[in-house]
Amino acid sequence: MKTRLERIQQDLENLQQFNATPEKGLTRFSLTEEDRGAREYLRKELQKLDLNVYEDPAGSLFGRRAGTEDLPAILIGSHFDSVKNGGHFDGPAGVIMALEIMRTLQDEKIQTRYPIEFVAMIEEEGGRFGSGVFGSRAMAGLVDYELLLKRRDADGISMAEAFESFGFNPREIEKAKRTKDQVKAFIELHIEQGPVLESRGSDIGIVEFIVGITQLKVTLKGRPDHAGTTPMDMRADPLVVASQVIARIPDFPVAEKNGSVSTVGVLEVKPGASNIVPESVTFVVDIRSKDSESIERIVGKITEALDSASQGTPVSYETEILLGVKPVPMEKGIVASFRENAEALGFSYEMMLSGAGHDAMIMGLFTDVGLIFVPSRDGRSHCPEEWTDYEDLQKGIEVIYETILQLGEAIK
Amino acid sequence: MKTRLERIQQDLENLQQFNATPEKGLTRFSLTEEDRGAREYLRKELQKLDLNVYEDPAGSLFGRRAGTEDLPAILIGSHFDSVKNGGHFDGPAGVIMALEIMRTLQDEKIQTRYPIEFVAMIEEEGGRFGSGVFGSRAMAGLVDYELLLKRRDADGISMAEAFESFGFNPREIEKAKRTKDQVKAFIELHIEQGPVLESRGSDIGIVEFIVGITQLKVTLKGRPDHAGTTPMDMRADPLVVASQVIARIPDFPVAEKNGSVSTVGVLEVKPGASNIVPESVTFVVDIRSKDSESIERIVGKITEALDSASQGTPVSYETEILLGVKPVPMEKGIVASFRENAEALGFSYEMMLSGAGHDAMIMGLFTDVGLIFVPSRDGRSHCPEEWTDYEDLQKGIEVIYETILQLGEAIK
Repeated sequence: MKTRLERIQQDLENLQQFNATPEKGLTRFSLTEEDRGAREYLRKELQKLDLNVYEDPAGSLFGRRAGTEDLPAILIGSHFDSVKNGGHFDGPAGVIMALEIMRTLQDEKIQTRYPIEFVAMIEEEGGRFGSGVFGSRAMAGLVDYELLLKRRDADGISMAEAFESFGFNPREIEKAKRTKDQVKAFIELHIEQGPVLESRGSDIGIVEFIVGITQLKVTLKGRPDHAGTTPMDMRADPLVVASQVIARIPDFPVAEKNGSVSTVGVLEVKPGASNIVPESVTFVVDIRSKDSESIERIVGKITEALDSASQGTPVSYETEILLGVKPVPMEKGIVASFRENAEALGFSYEMMLSGAGHDAMIMGLFTDVGLIFVPSRDGRSHCPEEWTDYEDLQKGIEVIYETILQLGEAIK
Repeated sequence: MKTRLERIQQDLENLQQFNATPEKGLTRFSLTEEDRGAREYLRKELQKLDLNVYEDPAGSLFGRRAGTEDLPAILIGSHFDSVKNGGHFDGPAGVIMALEIMRTLQDEKIQTRYPIEFVAMIEEEGGRFGSGVFGSRAMAGLVDYELLLKRRDADGISMAEAFESFGFNPREIEKAKRTKDQVKAFIELHIEQGPVLESRGSDIGIVEFIVGITQLKVTLKGRPDHAGTTPMDMRADPLVVASQVIARIPDFPVAEKNGSVSTVGVLEVKPGASNIVPESVTFVVDIRSKDSESIERIVGKITEALDSASQGTPVSYETEILLGVKPVPMEKGIVASFRENAEALGFSYEMMLSGAGHDAMIMGLFTDVGLIFVPSRDGRSHCPEEWTDYEDLQKGIEVIYETILQLGEAIK
């Protein structure tokens, strides 16, 4: 019989076959041939375990293991779609966690009071239809048929058409909705997608909050003068003002002393000619924190910096909030259980923020959630180089397994 | 008989007809139907003045008025092509200056020792073939047949093909070359394309130098981390470093106290996603000054600023000189003559730098040059709103006319 480590490796390697871009990282978009392949592989593995295997109208795959009582289920899993040319761990690591735990429960002939359900969700990345965390949004009741008609892939195929030709009934999408009465908790494992665990040499990360995200779009307007004929004191140069502000932005999250971060990743200069003083500059500040008040303070400081840099110049600015998502706390009891189990198993861990959104963020809208991170080599993700050592993945799985026994109330 | 002012207005309005984008500014690319129309209009006007009208192999149009002696000619004029959706003055103002001066010489039956030649040059803007100041470069001997084969317009037509189908022999292009023995001086009138004359309420600008231009490309390299999962102190963000430098760049030319200017008009952030810390930032600094040493000092200060901003960070940078053109002084005798004539005529004037390149810059490589600016409303240029009052244009023409009488040694 295979060891747990061998099974994990085998599952990961098996799933890697269902890939539209072999040799160029993993591309597994939702409701495609690759989705079908991965889905059927998982279905077969779940059926071997005598689980009640089904799909919900949103296309997520479930494998239910009955409890000794008719109680809300504990869901475990993650997503099995990928970005374009992504890696083999973002998503699948958590799906394999769930599969391996279902196997172990079966092997060990464990009985739990609460039902335990494997879940593999689709379209978390939004790679095909630009509609991310789709499977979890459907479970949270945030998706309707109108959306399926509206969202289209690069070939113009709507989600509704794709669902239909894949064998689902898109008109039933709202039936994917779950409630707290049906779902006691959702527990996810995900790769960190950052450098913290590796750099601190920690085995796993126990997430306490998925951060809130505010994206602030700043547009500065000046005047597009000739770069040769306009004296320095007669210019209205929005890039000079923008630079003064962007140079200061890193200080604002650091002053919060709670792991808040801010990033300017998009900046556009118009008209964008080397011999024309810019007419306008647009940039987006992405601000993330576990604390909504920190986000508000950072936005306030950016606005003050814009005021002070543009004051006395002919440059004007305006701001717009593109996105505002509140921080989501992980359930304290689950967090405590992860912590105790990590200690009992002798694993080193970090208490962490998740700086990226995950299905757990959405599931947290209607049920208790827990999220374990495993290390990402060099912090890389969404690229072919994405990697997590199987031993590290196994440690994350073992911690969750112990928590499932507790949360599911395994009968001794 | 029409007044000078009426003739100037009439010429400008007549030339405006030869336009590929009526109602949307002037678009008159070289060797097109619009070029043909403008060229034939000018040819007819020159022929009325009994001039020796001819074209050189580079497609520029000349109208020669013999001197009383066989001496090098004094060329006067500018270009008659435009940018896409440009204005009616950038180029034509100087062509009409030359036409009006030829008319006045004829009307007044002036004899000069030196021949005087009208010239209307093509492709100064490089709008069609991306090969700017073409007519003057051909006269300076900087153009060969190879270049005509290489340069192509947006439809893939080479300059050689365009010359051929227009009726020129592109293989003879090198015969456009002139020498100091043939050309005593070149005198140009051009719109200022900047705000200085208007803001100071001056009638004309007397250019002392066409500035030198250095374009410095700066590339900063960092690491494309996830904007949510990467702590602030573990980032290599090239945009933060670039911003610190760009915020300081305006101080460097101002410190030169000689009208030097620096501009960052191009800046590109890669990969350019709001949730990814930039991997690289590229920007171009355009530096202009009448003094080569000022340009060198400004480049030095930018390099120091890059060193100091990147020091102690994981961000690296490299620089590349994209363009390096030396300042061109206008001939001191011509400048002095402009000044005396402006004073004698009671016109207010500014001694100026030309921050933009012009045909005079290239002609200065082999002969004496002089350049008069006339005011641009709101400093605007290369747009449909480009405007110079006819009265202002007339003042510039009158100053040049007096200088031509002196330089050409009119016989009293």
